[in-house]
Amino acid sequence: MKRKLYDLAAADSAFRFSPYCWRIKLALAHKNLSYDTIPWRFTDKDAIAFSGQGTVPVLVDGKTTISDSQAIAEYLEDTYPNEASLFGDPQARAVTLFVKHWAESTLHPAIAKIVLPAIFKRLAPADQAYFRTTREASHGMTIEAIEAGRAGYLPALEAALEPLRRTLRAQDFIAGEAPAYADHIIFGALQWAAMTTEEPLWAEDDVLAVWMRAVLSAYDLD
Amino acid sequence: MKRKLYDLAAADSAFRFSPYCWRIKLALAHKNLSYDTIPWRFTDKDAIAFSGQGTVPVLVDGKTTISDSQAIAEYLEDTYPNEASLFGDPQARAVTLFVKHWAESTLHPAIAKIVLPAIFKRLAPADQAYFRTTREASHGMTIEAIEAGRAGYLPALEAALEPLRRTLRAQDFIAGEAPAYADHIIFGALQWAAMTTEEPLWAEDDVLAVWMRAVLSAYDLD
Repeated sequence: MKRKLYDLAAADSAFRFSPYCWRIKLALAHKNLSYDTIPWRFTDKDAIAFSGQGTVPVLVDGKTTISDSQAIAEYLEDTYPNEASLFGDPQARAVTLFVKHWAESTLHPAIAKIVLPAIFKRLAPADQAYFRTTREASHGMTIEAIEAGRAGYLPALEAALEPLRRTLRAQDFIAGEAPAYADHIIFGALQWAAMTTEEPLWAEDDVLAVWMRAVLSAYDLD
Repeated sequence: MKRKLYDLAAADSAFRFSPYCWRIKLALAHKNLSYDTIPWRFTDKDAIAFSGQGTVPVLVDGKTTISDSQAIAEYLEDTYPNEASLFGDPQARAVTLFVKHWAESTLHPAIAKIVLPAIFKRLAPADQAYFRTTREASHGMTIEAIEAGRAGYLPALEAALEPLRRTLRAQDFIAGEAPAYADHIIFGALQWAAMTTEEPLWAEDDVLAVWMRAVLSAYDLD
């Protein structure tokens, strides 16, 4: 039985934009593991109830079900040790955890306000109601108010991207000569931003865009 | 001839607060290398002219002179391969470069405005004039104006510290079970902040303070 990955989808079920799901799609490619994706929407809670919680990614690998992107990455690393390592040595694995927390506490919030209104427009109707309620509660303002403030969020994103740009001017990938899970984490965030923004957030020849193409190319996903 | 490290000092020559010099003091301890420090002040350009540039840290190791903290760390790693590694495997070394750029583009600026006025007061008179001119130019305001805005800078520091706190709640050190250069980089920044701030920036039982004591203890520097 082929591996199954429940992957967040918009109204157009081919539009897959979740940063956490992108991490796992790259991690699976890194480990040379084939899989089918199952498009999943925010309100399809029943479809993944078997996993014990209500968000994706959820990976079904034979008899094993794992949810939470970090748990899935660790599962893949431990279960497929003969494939290329996602993390490197224990020191690299530990420092990669800092990259995860940086992405989630600095980069994701800087991106979220910019792309959230555009994501809202792309969602299936049932998901729109869910998304409006949850996102307006967490941001403390309406989606329309978030959208009206867009220009004001761009400087914070530029500041958040600065350590990435500096690093990628010095080396090809965050993990050095080839991409690894630190790259997957950050690629997920930037792919989420690039796929959903209505106006480009960086130029085609920006070091970030060059690196994103190189990550996809490394896994023959381009 | 014993190694010599030129180390930034305040008017009180025992007060050593440079984040970049702290990186190297920890890196030397990590490599089990003894050294003497030479107190150096911003305006002592002549004293380090032999190094080819005008800032510290500068390390003199036998016939070799190295400046720039990153170049010194790489020199120590390559010259003393039989001592504990500063970086770990090539993947860890690459991801540690992201930590460096994050510290310098996100953490340092968040700390700088908070502690800069207090540092100014501690400097030797000749350094005060230099510091005022250079810092007022780079910040685009007077030291007194920076100081008046102190309370306004604290939320950005809290936000910048969040990925650190999350990481250190999950593992003992940034590099995992023992400190390494990723820890040295961040310790340098927080030590700079903790030594110079006039009001504590975090509590004694904050995960950051616990980790800072653990870093010093790992090298018998407590």
